[in-house]
Amino acid sequence: MKIIREPHEMQQTALTLRDKAIRIGLVPTMGAFHDGHVSLMRRAKHENDVCVVSLFVNPLQFNDPADLERYPRNEAADLEIARSVGVDILFMPSVAAMYPPDAQTFVEVTRVSQPLCGGNRPGHFRGVATVVAKLLMITLPRRVYFGLKDYQQCRVVAQMARDLYFPPDLVFCPTVREADGLAMSSRNVRLSPEERRAASILPRALELAQAQFAAGETNPAAIQARVRDCLLSEPLASIEYVEVVDAQTLEPIADIVQPALVAIAARLGDTRLIDSVVLTPPQSEPEPPASEPLDISDVPHRTTGHHER
Amino acid sequence: MKIIREPHEMQQTALTLRDKAIRIGLVPTMGAFHDGHVSLMRRAKHENDVCVVSLFVNPLQFNDPADLERYPRNEAADLEIARSVGVDILFMPSVAAMYPPDAQTFVEVTRVSQPLCGGNRPGHFRGVATVVAKLLMITLPRRVYFGLKDYQQCRVVAQMARDLYFPPDLVFCPTVREADGLAMSSRNVRLSPEERRAASILPRALELAQAQFAAGETNPAAIQARVRDCLLSEPLASIEYVEVVDAQTLEPIADIVQPALVAIAARLGDTRLIDSVVLTPPQSEPEPPASEPLDISDVPHRTTGHHER
Repeated sequence: MKIIREPHEMQQTALTLRDKAIRIGLVPTMGAFHDGHVSLMRRAKHENDVCVVSLFVNPLQFNDPADLERYPRNEAADLEIARSVGVDILFMPSVAAMYPPDAQTFVEVTRVSQPLCGGNRPGHFRGVATVVAKLLMITLPRRVYFGLKDYQQCRVVAQMARDLYFPPDLVFCPTVREADGLAMSSRNVRLSPEERRAASILPRALELAQAQFAAGETNPAAIQARVRDCLLSEPLASIEYVEVVDAQTLEPIADIVQPALVAIAARLGDTRLIDSVVLTPPQSEPEPPASEPLDISDVPHRTTGHHER
Repeated sequence: MKIIREPHEMQQTALTLRDKAIRIGLVPTMGAFHDGHVSLMRRAKHENDVCVVSLFVNPLQFNDPADLERYPRNEAADLEIARSVGVDILFMPSVAAMYPPDAQTFVEVTRVSQPLCGGNRPGHFRGVATVVAKLLMITLPRRVYFGLKDYQQCRVVAQMARDLYFPPDLVFCPTVREADGLAMSSRNVRLSPEERRAASILPRALELAQAQFAAGETNPAAIQARVRDCLLSEPLASIEYVEVVDAQTLEPIADIVQPALVAIAARLGDTRLIDSVVLTPPQSEPEPPASEPLDISDVPHRTTGHHER
């Protein structure tokens, strides 16, 4: 595994690979690897010629300096995991390299950045869009892999890629969960044993929503109320939001007639956790995708990306 | 000459060319071609395998709807000129294709967008940065050509390209002028004969600044005052701004010890004209660039772009 720390060296390497028609699969990460990351790395390696993993804790997407300070970092373990999975290049730039003193360009995705986490984390998605734009240009991948655990991030990135005509295919991969259903997240290591046990209330609340929807409930407010009640039953959890919104635009809906997102943000002690599930009405299901990658970006974007580069 | 109107068709064509190692030179324009455009097209054709010219009057960079309405358009003449110069592909997207209803991604370059025209044209450079980002991703050029007449635009684009690691080389080309020194601009056709004669006051004022600087004046305020006085001598011209700033950051300077920009914006009747000149102190001159393209982007960016793709 090659470790590259300089963006221009990474870009030069990517250009050289592209000239030889060697396809790069990129997994952008903030490190503190867990099995969710590993599943993305495995898939990137399987579907491309070279697997590049970027590891960069992006200060621009932390609205809260204390949260940035506390964000889990474990470089030694990350290197070990990346090596064992067979990652070809680990791109680990410094903050100074990604944001030199005169850096002043920002990418902003307006509408899908505003609801849900956008309300509680001002500037967060601007930071995400800006760093992902940089990472895509530096690593020039054929495909990029994101975990659907950060659903709104996936939507923001998909919208940016579509609006700016970024060539790579974006591949959004299912959330990987612990045995009790808790979505894997780097932040989980910060939970106390009691909080860790209590945290399973998030997936349980989402399962209730799915069951309710399967039983015929299509009223967003009714589903939202049930999820909220479930979360309130856990005294260690404090709700930041529970929303049922359009899965594409993330805007409020009156009735679930198209795919809807049930999204939760809650705190357990100092740790903020998010989780979500998409409810898809039977009539709105697309053609069975067979073994196609799950992809929530828009059709026009997918269409462009289908040739080989 | 091939005319392409659909962004995805253009991108597909660009990807196919890139796969064959055919290098694209892009000239982004808003049409109403004059000899300044022609010089960029000739250079793009000479230095690359394929010359792509984009013609798109970008509504996002017009802060004033009346200005957008009045902007000169002459598609028939433009086609004729592009053909005669040997342009290979003319990319003419519609507004709806470049900005579909759900488009919501903007690229913002903060510091260099604020002074000069940024103060009088809010949102203008956000529109420029956003459309240039889209055009670069759609046409995937090896080199992109801009005229230095729009000096601040060149700085904004150079900064964006550097910050976001856009791979193409940016080539900034000297302003092409009429016999009386007036900088060529699509807007010049809107001048009445009297206004056209009066407009030569802009280059004459800049020549005064150059002469004053050559004679040893390095005080920005003194040069600014001389330029302003000169412009005031022409009753048909009304000054929007006269500024002497750092040529790289566009920030105010106390003394000209590094390259400085003398920038003018003035109105002749309804028509807004801009012009500028760079004053370079002898000791700050870089190594003689020989036949290298004139390039105001930063060294790190140039360095990345020097290999062949």
